[in-house]
Amino acid sequence: MSRIYLDHNATAPLRTEARAAMIEAMDVVGNPSSVHGEGRAAKALVERARAQVAEAVGCNPAEVVFTSGATEAASVLGNPKTGVDVLVDQSAHDALWAQSSMYLWELKPNGPGHTLAMGLANSETGVITRPPEKVEGQWPVGRAAADWLLLDITQAVGRIPFAFSWAGADMAILTGHKFGGPKGVGALIIRDNLDTDPLSVGGGQEMGRRSGTENVIGIAGMGAAIEAAMRDLESGVWDHVEKLRNILETGVEAASKETILVGKDEARIPNTSCLLTPGWKGETQVMAMDLAGFAVSAGSACSSGKVKASRVLMAMGYNEADAACAIRVSLGPENTEEDVTRFVDVWTDKLNKHRARSA
Amino acid sequence: MSRIYLDHNATAPLRTEARAAMIEAMDVVGNPSSVHGEGRAAKALVERARAQVAEAVGCNPAEVVFTSGATEAASVLGNPKTGVDVLVDQSAHDALWAQSSMYLWELKPNGPGHTLAMGLANSETGVITRPPEKVEGQWPVGRAAADWLLLDITQAVGRIPFAFSWAGADMAILTGHKFGGPKGVGALIIRDNLDTDPLSVGGGQEMGRRSGTENVIGIAGMGAAIEAAMRDLESGVWDHVEKLRNILETGVEAASKETILVGKDEARIPNTSCLLTPGWKGETQVMAMDLAGFAVSAGSACSSGKVKASRVLMAMGYNEADAACAIRVSLGPENTEEDVTRFVDVWTDKLNKHRARSA
Repeated sequence: MSRIYLDHNATAPLRTEARAAMIEAMDVVGNPSSVHGEGRAAKALVERARAQVAEAVGCNPAEVVFTSGATEAASVLGNPKTGVDVLVDQSAHDALWAQSSMYLWELKPNGPGHTLAMGLANSETGVITRPPEKVEGQWPVGRAAADWLLLDITQAVGRIPFAFSWAGADMAILTGHKFGGPKGVGALIIRDNLDTDPLSVGGGQEMGRRSGTENVIGIAGMGAAIEAAMRDLESGVWDHVEKLRNILETGVEAASKETILVGKDEARIPNTSCLLTPGWKGETQVMAMDLAGFAVSAGSACSSGKVKASRVLMAMGYNEADAACAIRVSLGPENTEEDVTRFVDVWTDKLNKHRARSA
Repeated sequence: MSRIYLDHNATAPLRTEARAAMIEAMDVVGNPSSVHGEGRAAKALVERARAQVAEAVGCNPAEVVFTSGATEAASVLGNPKTGVDVLVDQSAHDALWAQSSMYLWELKPNGPGHTLAMGLANSETGVITRPPEKVEGQWPVGRAAADWLLLDITQAVGRIPFAFSWAGADMAILTGHKFGGPKGVGALIIRDNLDTDPLSVGGGQEMGRRSGTENVIGIAGMGAAIEAAMRDLESGVWDHVEKLRNILETGVEAASKETILVGKDEARIPNTSCLLTPGWKGETQVMAMDLAGFAVSAGSACSSGKVKASRVLMAMGYNEADAACAIRVSLGPENTEEDVTRFVDVWTDKLNKHRARSA
């Protein structure tokens, strides 16, 4: 029996369009910084992808800075210009959390040059947090205000409509592998006229904002993937994914009265389900489901193999014991109704065995 | 007539072994940080490549930190722990140069915690600079001494024998695309017990030294490429390349008495020729040769399209006017004798036309 992959928030399978673009790019020999024909051909691939990303996230191509992923893009928060007093909330991804110099609960009014860094869609629960409305040119945060807004759109891109220009944000970060591009390539979206120090220094690539020879093959793949993801979004593919997610949740609710569907009553991205079953460790569930042929996760995959109680769930008010009892099921366009009904069947079976052992 | 690529120091064509490994890796769905089967399969690809890189550069696998390239790896020099007073010489690559806080000529004895950062092989001339012998646990630099040594082995890997452990260096940086891996993936080699802050923070990947989801496809390609490059090196492929380089230089000398073969009398990597023809701008030569079907460069390609007088050549004592009149021809294993003899013929023809115009 083939395995069923239900961990798209950790990473999504490579799209066929990305694969084709990458294989094509493998034949382009040049360094994009070289002025000869081979160099210009490589540069053209990068610029094509830049246009594809700009079109998809609703910004100008000159506002797209390719990086090695969202984590590198988030390092703009360590910048002495925009990185003064970075504010994150407890549900932000570790990549933002690690860059934060100050947390919301420590926030004092009228502090200098704050940046508010927030995730548009939470990776563990799928819950969408809309940024606050700007007031007198600043972003209100509790009793204070931030001068700049950085949106982590990693889990939102290609799954819900978004436009950088409409959101009015100053910066956004994303990574290719959540929407079917390769891992290890992402982007910082940054307002044209926003003055920050470069993410890295050296050859002056990426309009001086990020030095280093470009990941041409990966960038080509990311561009093709985001274009395909936008086509999917417009054609209603994610409505179908949402329907599958709802079938899954209805099945789980029928099987287990005590399981909490975290964030179910809030606005969520269409593919994510966070199932919290008190007394049944998430880690145990992930292992049991893995042995049965299903890939799901406990917490964010980006935390490099660490499995621990979710900071995100604790921030939502769950105690540590309960927060350690959640799993995340995150679907993608290639999943089928059979995938989710089989998941429910096997998960219910494992739950019953867990109950029998605990009885 | 097909084009002739003679710019391998800017970037080399993707090796067939790298291509195959990357295409294979495209089917591996998981995030290396995920604990399920798909995640472990992705992790295995990364660890296999880490072993391949370690074997090739002569270090322990735990000393290999994958990055997005040599530029990111060089950012370890910006680190408050090892980055105190970074010393570079004038011939170092921009990626080191941009990180330097102090230059050799400013160096005072007995300064605190210096790092000496130097290129093992110069990208523009191919000249090899061996690191100094350690004296009383320090690296002598003029009248001073450095506590740490960082070697930029980017142009040396796979072209000359090198072992990190033998060199006794504390850190080394390299990038995959110079030896037939993809662009946008490289490594920092760092002594096991050397304490530095991470290159980036977040999920804690790469043993905590570099956060961010790994470029699995690119890393797999880099691993396969370095393994193949080592096989080539051992089988004498670069002796053949050196022979071609010598044929080229003999041809150039015969055609032009005034052309200087920069660094010819010094130890060089086998593939690089730096031809300086006073009065004939390097930029003009690169364009003329490009139109005639040859890819060569003036200066380092990493400087993102900028063409200017070479800082490296000026550091060697050439004046600005002469330093602007050099081109770099850098060969690779796939070049043939016909490639270099055709280059000499066409270059000689262009030189004669230049002479006629200047007369």
